This record gives sequence, C-alpha cells and structure tokens, in this order.
Amino acid sequence: MIDISISEVGKYENEKVCIKGWLYNQRSSGKIKFMIIRDGTGFLQGTLVKSEMEEKYFDMLDDLNYESSIIVEGEIKSEKRAPSGYEMLVKTIQVVHNAEKDYPISLKKHGVGFLMNYRHLWMRTQRQNAILRIRTEIVKIIHNFLNQKGFCLVESPILTPAACEGTTTLFETDYFGDKAYLTQSGQLYNEASAMAFGKVYCFGPTFRAEKSKTRRHLMEFWMVEPEAAYFDFQDNNKLQEEMIVAIAKHVLEHCPLELKILERDTSMLENIQAPFPYLSYDDAIKVIQKKGSDTQWGDDLSGEDETIISGQYKKPVFIHHFPTKCKAFYMKPDPERPETVLGADLIAPEGFGEIIGGGQRIDDYKLIKERIKEFNLPEDDYQWYIDLRKYGSVPHSGFGLGIERTVAWICNLPHIRETIPFPRMLNKIYP
Amino acid sequence: MIDISISEVGKYENEKVCIKGWLYNQRSSGKIKFMIIRDGTGFLQGTLVKSEMEEKYFDMLDDLNYESSIIVEGEIKSEKRAPSGYEMLVKTIQVVHNAEKDYPISLKKHGVGFLMNYRHLWMRTQRQNAILRIRTEIVKIIHNFLNQKGFCLVESPILTPAACEGTTTLFETDYFGDKAYLTQSGQLYNEASAMAFGKVYCFGPTFRAEKSKTRRHLMEFWMVEPEAAYFDFQDNNKLQEEMIVAIAKHVLEHCPLELKILERDTSMLENIQAPFPYLSYDDAIKVIQKKGSDTQWGDDLSGEDETIISGQYKKPVFIHHFPTKCKAFYMKPDPERPETVLGADLIAPEGFGEIIGGGQRIDDYKLIKERIKEFNLPEDDYQWYIDLRKYGSVPHSGFGLGIERTVAWICNLPHIRETIPFPRMLNKIYP
Repeated sequence: MIDISISEVGKYENEKVCIKGWLYNQRSSGKIKFMIIRDGTGFLQGTLVKSEMEEKYFDMLDDLNYESSIIVEGEIKSEKRAPSGYEMLVKTIQVVHNAEKDYPISLKKHGVGFLMNYRHLWMRTQRQNAILRIRTEIVKIIHNFLNQKGFCLVESPILTPAACEGTTTLFETDYFGDKAYLTQSGQLYNEASAMAFGKVYCFGPTFRAEKSKTRRHLMEFWMVEPEAAYFDFQDNNKLQEEMIVAIAKHVLEHCPLELKILERDTSMLENIQAPFPYLSYDDAIKVIQKKGSDTQWGDDLSGEDETIISGQYKKPVFIHHFPTKCKAFYMKPDPERPETVLGADLIAPEGFGEIIGGGQRIDDYKLIKERIKEFNLPEDDYQWYIDLRKYGSVPHSGFGLGIERTVAWICNLPHIRETIPFPRMLNKIYP
Repeated sequence: MIDISISEVGKYENEKVCIKGWLYNQRSSGKIKFMIIRDGTGFLQGTLVKSEMEEKYFDMLDDLNYESSIIVEGEIKSEKRAPSGYEMLVKTIQVVHNAEKDYPISLKKHGVGFLMNYRHLWMRTQRQNAILRIRTEIVKIIHNFLNQKGFCLVESPILTPAACEGTTTLFETDYFGDKAYLTQSGQLYNEASAMAFGKVYCFGPTFRAEKSKTRRHLMEFWMVEPEAAYFDFQDNNKLQEEMIVAIAKHVLEHCPLELKILERDTSMLENIQAPFPYLSYDDAIKVIQKKGSDTQWGDDLSGEDETIISGQYKKPVFIHHFPTKCKAFYMKPDPERPETVLGADLIAPEGFGEIIGGGQRIDDYKLIKERIKEFNLPEDDYQWYIDLRKYGSVPHSGFGLGIERTVAWICNLPHIRETIPFPRMLNKIYP
C-alpha cells in the first residue's frame, strides 16, 4: 500500500492508501465514528463504519487521546462537504504513541497568552498551520520572483559593528572584547553587494529591541531586501509593485484551502493589480489632518496615520517624497526639491500599515560624508560604505519588505504574533 | 538599443546592445584598446578599434580609473578565446563616475588580511564573484530540492532562551532584563515544527563564539536543517545523499564558467553520485589509528581525523554509529547497541571535513528527560521540547548542512572565509 500525504489525496480517489499522522479530533455516533487526522500537510476526515472494518480497530479509537500519533489505512472517497473534497474510509489504525490525556490545547477558545506559551503545540492547529503555510508560499514566491528578475541572493551579516538606523533599539553582544550589534537591516551591506553583483537581495532575520507592545512589532522579524545598481526611484517602485502583485497572485493560486480556513475575503486579494496608487507625502498630510491627525509636515507618519490612508484604497498605496529630515541618512534627496527624498513607503490596504520602505540611495561622495557627520555616525565604521561612492558610484535603489507584516495582511490577521513560527515579543522569548 | 546583462550576451550575437557596469581592466596596443567590463553578472572583453569608432570615445578610456562606472554600447561578437565565447566591439562609452585613482585592490596579489579589510571591494573581483554566485546557486538548489521532496520552510528563532549544545560558545545578549543567546542550531525548534508540518526545514544564520582560528570555522554561518516526522536514520541518510548529489549536479550544470574561473577539477564533482560509502565509527577509528591518530574509541573525531578518512574516498562518506557519549543529548541510541547512536556525519571528499551532522532523535519521554538531566540542562527551559515526547511522539530525524563548508568543498577553497559575503571571524567584524 502506498504512503501518501493528505495534501495529495485528490490523486488517490478510490484507492487504498496509508497516512501517517496525528489524531486531531473525533466524534462517535453509534455505529459510525468520525476522526480528523492531520499529517502536517493537511487535515482529513476519516470515517469508521463498524460493519465495514475489523472491530478491534473500530473500538481502538475510543482509547486514543488528542494528538496521538497514528498510522491509518483506508480508502480515499470523494466527499463534497469536506474542505478538501475527500475523506478516508478507515480500515485499520496503528497507534505509534498514545498521547497523554492532558493535552493542553483543546479545540475550544483559549487566551492568547496561554496559546503563546504552548506555541510548539498551537502550531499544530488548523488555523496556525494555514497561516504558516501561506508564509512559506510567500517566501517561496519572493525568491522565485527575484531570481527571475535577475536578482542574486547575497547575504548581509547579522553581527555588525555599527548601527544602521540609530543605536537606541539595538541588541548588543560582546564580540571577543568588542561590541557588536544584531542587524536591523541588511541594506548597507546590500549596497556593497549590488556594486559587485548588479542586482542582489538579502533575506534574513533582523532585530529591533523596541520597548513597544503593538500588534505590528516583533523583536525578531524577517526581511527581504532587494538592492540594485543602475536602478532609480521609479525602477524601484515598479519592482515593488510587481513583487506584491506576484505574491497576491501566488497565494490565491496555491493556497485556496488555507485562505478558506482563515475565512479570508479573497476578493480583497484579487484587487491587488498594477498600477498601485501614488500619494505624495504632502497630500498624505492633508488627508490625515482632515481626518483629525495631529501629524505635521516634517513628522514621520504614525501607525494610525497609515491606517487612515490605507482605508482610502483597495490596493497598496505608495506614499512618496517624505521629508528628508524624517528619513534615514542614506536616502537621496530629490534634486528638484531637496527637502524631500526619492523614497516611498508602501502601505498595505485594509489597515495593515507599512509593509515596504525603500528608495534611491545617495550616490555622491561628499553628500554621504556630510550626512554621516550630521547623523553623528562614526565615520571610521562607515569607511567601507563611503568607499562605495569613491569607486564607481552609480544610481542605486532598494527596499525592504517585512515578511511578517505581509503575512498578516495577506492572511488578514489582527496581530503579527501569529505570522512567525516562534514570535519574539517584549518579555516573551519562550518557547 | 537594448540594455542587457553580460550573463546573457550569447543571445545577442551581432546585435548592438548597451551594458551598464564598471571598468575592470584595460590595456592598449596603439590603435586597438581592450577593456574588461563587469556588470555583476559577468565579465566581458570590450575591444576598441580606433578606426571604427568616434575618437573621443577611443581616447576616453585613457582617463578612466579602475572600477569607474561606465555605460558602453557596441556590438556583440563571437570570440572563441574569451571565457564566455563573446566580446563586444565597443562604439561608445558614457562615464557615470570616474573612480578615484587610489583603488586599493589591483589585479595583482594582495595579502588576505588586506583583502579582508576591503571585502566590500574584494567581492567585485572575478574569483570572489564566482564563489559567491556558486553559493547562491547552492542555496537555490537546496530550497528547490527540499520543496520538491515536500519539505516546508519553517523558520527557527535566532534569539533563544537556552543553549542547544552546551553554553560555552554562545553569543549572549540582554533581552529586556533576561539573558538570550544567539542560536547555534535551529534543530530543537525544527522538531516542534516537524510535529506540526510533517517535513520541515529551517534555513538561517547560526552562531558560535568559538575562540578558534581555523580554516573551517566562522562565528556566523548559515545552515540548512531539514527535520521530518515518521523519518528514521536510514531515510535521513538517503535524503542527505540525494541532496548532495543534487547540489553537485546543479552546480556542474549551472556554473560552468564560475568553475572554470576557479580552476575547479570538475571530474571531482562528477564523482558525486549515489550511493555514498558508509563507514562505522568503529572502523573509522581503526583507519585513523593506523594512520597515526591518537584518537581513541569514545572521542569525537578531530579535523585531522576527518581529513584522513576523507582522503580514502572520492565521494562523501557517512561515518555512522558514533559513541552516545560524544554526541548531543537528543541523539537516539541504537536499541541494538545503546552505547552508539543512530546518527551519522557526512564527510566531504578532498579533505573538506564534516559538512553534515545528523541522526534520529530520541522519541521516548522518559529517556529525553533523563538525558536533559544528565547534561545538566535546565528542564524548565526545555519543557516545550519534552512536550513533543508527551503528545504524539513519533520516530523523527534530521540533519544540518553547513552552507559555507559545502561552498568551500564545491569550489575547492582552502579557507572558509571566502565562502560568505561578509565573514565574521575571531576579532574580525569589519566591514
């Protein structure tokens, strides 16, 4: 008999197969029993009919606790009412391990604090499985999309001697007597890589030690950061637009079951088509002030501000030309209006806030040195970065997309903590 | 005129194209000048014939320093003597930025210490570009291979509250008043993920604060770690074998130019075919003792021991059934010989040492608790890990492949420092 995964049951209609998994749920109605078996790739209803199987197997189910590991054999049948369209007519059950009775997570409601303490088990539930599978598909399409566009994966280091964007929110560690910091962004190193490889991206964990407890922040989160030489502000926005469209399309095509489990309104994802709207920072300020925001020209936008703007559109919206003074030191001022930069944030629809920050970088040697001084950054630590403007400088741009925020948006999750396998939050590092 | 990448010149024979890149090298012989232009995707010879182009462009080259950023237009011609098989008959040159004269890296020999300080520029050289492009291809084939085998990417956390394998070589950081450590391996979390998703892998940076200066160690390195439920020691070895064969095959197919630049003996990679030889630890001890090693039964193998064994084969070799006492606490003892474990290291040929460590994990609740006690690990921190044996335990196995060591082997590099964009070594964290 063939071993199969639940994700591929559709190929085995009316065949006898074997599935290795765990008992997710069960109920009995006399001479028929129902079980849900999960194997990590999906969830499948198993039907046990007393008259059509050996009695010992029929009886066995009563003694099994939730999450017991079992190997079941039976026949795959079409079943229109099942989410996957199939069920198994179970013939035999082999118990690998009968789980302890006190399995902490029932299929009823639990508080989030409780669930977070049992994240290692919570991951097994249908909803969490669906979210993290969508995450995986998002990561996959990002790699594929960027590779197709000629972008080459070049990792930026995690341990860095200097801060990318300010020093107040850094995790610090001792590095053989020196101080080292966990990276907040791979961008600066990406710029060096782009000058060596043309089009690059890094994909890795980044860290912010922010003492904030919001539904949009994690201490450890993953970012993909493309960066390209001979690439301007417009090229950069176009790439973002194409990537976001590709992500939405891929998830719609490859995760219909997961979206169904999450009860995601897929029409909202079908809207994600180019072109995306553009809103200047100047206009954004007008919009939010009309809605009662206190934010003044020159301030960065708050999470609430982003929510207001995001509510105006059914697509992601670019907010561009932020004030130079509220953005990072490396952002290139617009030559025609140097108090603003050639950068944009991409705000997800449905109130999910900023998912991308990006822009063109300063390519002028003198200007980058000035900016480093203005920002009180240690010039010695940045010498290598300055070198990039000394030897063959070119117009170049890039952006960073936060994976968790993107997952939260695509899955329509109110809180970012469910978008990563093991979230790291304020005062929360277990398990 | 069409903008192209050097990697795709073959498609544009006899066409006029535009390439945006940097001046890598040049030489003159009177009425003909030669330049090498690089654009990150490759290196291309450009020929300037005085009689066939505007004089101002012909003269321009004399004033350009190494690594100046330039946009060249010209016609692609077949040229058998060139590595790529093509060259460009240059018509025009546009200077984007004439690099400063003092470009630190000439195409002559430099000491490694010097080059490491200029890693951000050293990356631009042909050899380093080739190595890191091969790295990228290795990462790509690993993702593709594992996805095809049904493995799902599930990230393990980087910040962890407890040590995976001992505490002496950990980077520590303050986590809002608690201690946290940079992960040495995603494996323990992988085990939780495997129970939720069946077949998983994590792919991320790992850290060891080892005060050692060897040609095989970095402080920050990348690992891919597959882990699967219902997967035994044999399944695990087979997966490793298939993955390594897939890597060698992919690099041979996709990186012929890079391998040529590195002067790699490709016949050594063509040897990488299943099945790989198996050598028990017992036999390995005999082999190395015969060759003069002092290593005794019960000791872990040293780097030199691995080199001796690796010298006996033209393929990677599995050394299996290590003594239980010299392996990690979670390794499953062989029921038939509990003083040894159901684990194996995979040793690369040509003296490149261990590239994989893996094995079956303990699935018994009592035994894992005993082992955690024996190893003096804090049981509270490991409660979640113990839970995996309490609720639906199954036979499961996994392994970790070190990306940098694999790149070093595939590229035949004597030192691991060139296998990662920005190496982190003892006392070395710049740039």
